[in-house]
Amino acid sequence: MKNTVGRDIPQEYAEKYGVFEGQYAKKTSYQRASGKVTPVHPGESKLVGSIREAIEKCGLKDGMTISFHHHFREGDYVLNMVMDEIAKMGIKNLYLAPSSIANVHEPLIEHIKNGVVTGITSSGLRDKVGLAISQGIMKNPVIIRSHGGRARAIETGALHIDVAFLGVPSADEYGNANGSHGNAICGSLGYAKVDAEYADKVVLITDNLVPYPNTPISIPQNLVDYVVKVDAIGDPNGIAKGATRFTSNPKELLIAEIGSKVIVNSPYFKNGFSFQSGSGGSTLAVARFLAEEMRERGIKAGFILGGITSNMVEMLEEGLAEKIIDTQSFDRGAAESLARNENHYEISASFYANPGNKGAAVNNLDVVVLSALEVDTDFNVNVLTGSDGAIRGASGGHCDTAAGAKLSMILTPLVRGRIPTIVEKVNTVITPGEGIDVVVTEIGIAINPRRQDLIDALKDSGIPQFTIEELKEKAYKIAGTPDPIEYEDQVVALVEYRDGSIIDVVRKIKE
Amino acid sequence: MKNTVGRDIPQEYAEKYGVFEGQYAKKTSYQRASGKVTPVHPGESKLVGSIREAIEKCGLKDGMTISFHHHFREGDYVLNMVMDEIAKMGIKNLYLAPSSIANVHEPLIEHIKNGVVTGITSSGLRDKVGLAISQGIMKNPVIIRSHGGRARAIETGALHIDVAFLGVPSADEYGNANGSHGNAICGSLGYAKVDAEYADKVVLITDNLVPYPNTPISIPQNLVDYVVKVDAIGDPNGIAKGATRFTSNPKELLIAEIGSKVIVNSPYFKNGFSFQSGSGGSTLAVARFLAEEMRERGIKAGFILGGITSNMVEMLEEGLAEKIIDTQSFDRGAAESLARNENHYEISASFYANPGNKGAAVNNLDVVVLSALEVDTDFNVNVLTGSDGAIRGASGGHCDTAAGAKLSMILTPLVRGRIPTIVEKVNTVITPGEGIDVVVTEIGIAINPRRQDLIDALKDSGIPQFTIEELKEKAYKIAGTPDPIEYEDQVVALVEYRDGSIIDVVRKIKE
Repeated sequence: MKNTVGRDIPQEYAEKYGVFEGQYAKKTSYQRASGKVTPVHPGESKLVGSIREAIEKCGLKDGMTISFHHHFREGDYVLNMVMDEIAKMGIKNLYLAPSSIANVHEPLIEHIKNGVVTGITSSGLRDKVGLAISQGIMKNPVIIRSHGGRARAIETGALHIDVAFLGVPSADEYGNANGSHGNAICGSLGYAKVDAEYADKVVLITDNLVPYPNTPISIPQNLVDYVVKVDAIGDPNGIAKGATRFTSNPKELLIAEIGSKVIVNSPYFKNGFSFQSGSGGSTLAVARFLAEEMRERGIKAGFILGGITSNMVEMLEEGLAEKIIDTQSFDRGAAESLARNENHYEISASFYANPGNKGAAVNNLDVVVLSALEVDTDFNVNVLTGSDGAIRGASGGHCDTAAGAKLSMILTPLVRGRIPTIVEKVNTVITPGEGIDVVVTEIGIAINPRRQDLIDALKDSGIPQFTIEELKEKAYKIAGTPDPIEYEDQVVALVEYRDGSIIDVVRKIKE
Repeated sequence: MKNTVGRDIPQEYAEKYGVFEGQYAKKTSYQRASGKVTPVHPGESKLVGSIREAIEKCGLKDGMTISFHHHFREGDYVLNMVMDEIAKMGIKNLYLAPSSIANVHEPLIEHIKNGVVTGITSSGLRDKVGLAISQGIMKNPVIIRSHGGRARAIETGALHIDVAFLGVPSADEYGNANGSHGNAICGSLGYAKVDAEYADKVVLITDNLVPYPNTPISIPQNLVDYVVKVDAIGDPNGIAKGATRFTSNPKELLIAEIGSKVIVNSPYFKNGFSFQSGSGGSTLAVARFLAEEMRERGIKAGFILGGITSNMVEMLEEGLAEKIIDTQSFDRGAAESLARNENHYEISASFYANPGNKGAAVNNLDVVVLSALEVDTDFNVNVLTGSDGAIRGASGGHCDTAAGAKLSMILTPLVRGRIPTIVEKVNTVITPGEGIDVVVTEIGIAINPRRQDLIDALKDSGIPQFTIEELKEKAYKIAGTPDPIEYEDQVVALVEYRDGSIIDVVRKIKE
């Protein structure tokens, strides 16, 4: 069954989940899901001696769904520690629902092969785990969900978590936790907050037990069943790197500079505007160019949303932005700012991007600056599968912010290595073209024809404008027409749009 | 059917709610309740032009349940404004579920008489509304719930709120609200937080619209349907009075001093201990005597819980306490401290005192200092009905903190006017005697015989110890044996214990 971005969704999944019909096609009232509660009376301790004891006390059984958060990124020890213990206990057939999966979670491959894990939902899959999934090691397809889509799935009950294992940089024995104080800080616990609210059982795992009551409180005691103290929840340098560095790549800088010009010449660049930008390459650098323009023109942002890096903190501290609202702190500078600056405020992933709640922050976003692995001539974007067809990326907040923001920009070079990034049809659609307004490359921009207002606004900006087809032709001229990736039949991943419908599927790569 | 405090609960209510069987007799797992959600998409505004428009958009209908919070105390305009509009619209048969009802809500009497309101649950009823209810103007009995009991009722689904009308001192147009910034600040929005989480529709009413995103965020946008701007949400001086003054009444001071001595001589008075005390008379003054002892002995509290007043803020600022966790800020000093001091932290009523959640703050309380209208020889306490038998008080956090704290003290004079406060049988049981450890009067104390450890600990303290019967005899000697209050048959209020069972009923007073 073809959806509105032209992807053929196998009948089985089309019937089960529905197919994508447009960014805001769905608006259904529902009753929020909820977790089970076993009351804790005075004198009862939540502190347990080991991860194993916590697993036992939670009554974890074959077939249940467990979750983790990915705030510790490549520094995470928690997921592997817990999965290792679960495997030792002989529990099988688990559904794994972390907010995302990192390279460091490679041991999952064995857990999948051994039948400990038989289903996965995640924002993305990196490196070896992504490749293994793309090679078809798991029978059930992974469900790829955006950050907002995951929160929606949890809050609507589409994803019910039996036990959430949440690593936290600081906690007291009664379960009050935050991510901004401790040995290995991650800043915002935005993803974890949703799990804590909706899971039946919530286990906190920390290496930093502090006196009661631990404040600030990102996860409150009344949502927590057990607390486990371990030696280390992760590698501090993997959890939060020092300040994220700007790119020195001239092409990326050029793209960022053009990106900044697009914003400055758009109708949204005025006092009180809001923006979000990515954490790498051009998308990070665009904020630097933008900051210069803001200084020059005396323009101050109302808020920065994200996905927060040190450079945004600098903008806040310089007075270029009133507030930061933060669902994930990308580096140590961001995490430390969250701890110290009352105008740097932690929000949950639902608050950030859930399309099903009573209004997410992305709905109020003026500008978002995003990256892409590929963009096609319908402006559809792929941030999930690589040029070999294997899963190596993550959905993240890409389609959430693109849908919410008034100006959604993709920053990408025309080609990467010998591979065009502007193509006829993207390999995998994560974000539908209707949500993308401008594609920025090193030679100029293409504006989505739906946005005649932007075409007009930018026509005297001095930025070269092309059609998206023209950009594609230029890319193909440089790198040649790409050969289509060959897949087998097995569906290894379903890509859910943020509203829960299926926007694309990923199939097993041909060996 | 008699419950374990010897109260005869009419069969009808005993069957419907169960009868009280002991402080921790109930421990049942359950699935949390939840509210309905209608998603809000980008471009949709939550700001509506009037309270009437908000009521209409919420689809409020005959028979529904609506809620309010009582953080504005005697300064509240919101409940009356909304009820007035509802009455004008001809909506009838509403169930009213505010966290409490104040004197200022006297217009409710007309709404009850006119059939607009036909059921009520509240922490308490004051003055004229209490008297009217006690005179039997409403057919259905009011359900009196403690602060923790209300949160439990909401979270278990026993109390489902269709529409919550929440006055907030500051909000942005998308529904982010707090109580610590604005024209008329109330500090913590602890009660309102629970309503926002569980109601189907949430309407914020504010006189202070601020730019998006309003921070700090006590009520987040993702829980809010509509925002209404009005001229004034209340009288700032009624909402938060200046610093609460200490009593100058010599008898109250004497009781407070003895109360402080009890704490100091208890095993709980050591570094890191925690306490809560009331906001009036002796219970407020006890904190002053305690502070002196803490200074002298170099003892620092881990946290103060409450119900917070300026004098506790002073203790925090002086370094006599590490933290304050605050579900209700009683005066302006407390509200301002919440806004400025990161160690003064806002918590919800569920976090504070809900016996059904995964562990409330009261469970970790060492000492609570409470007042009473009457205490009986079983140590049962009445804080609801006056000497005329009419409802004039509130359950508040009385039974919640008494159940949670390791040392629960009642401070009360032997007699008030010509009425004994230590009696054979209290008129109405709010807090069962099993939760009360020490009764402190101006002539000495009575320790609950269940607490032989305290009797031993205090025997060399120099504080005169009596049995509770001896205190009662002394009170009766001064004021005479009180005549029993005469009631008619009609039950005008059910007193729920915090676990939802019925601990007592209040009947119509004899005209």
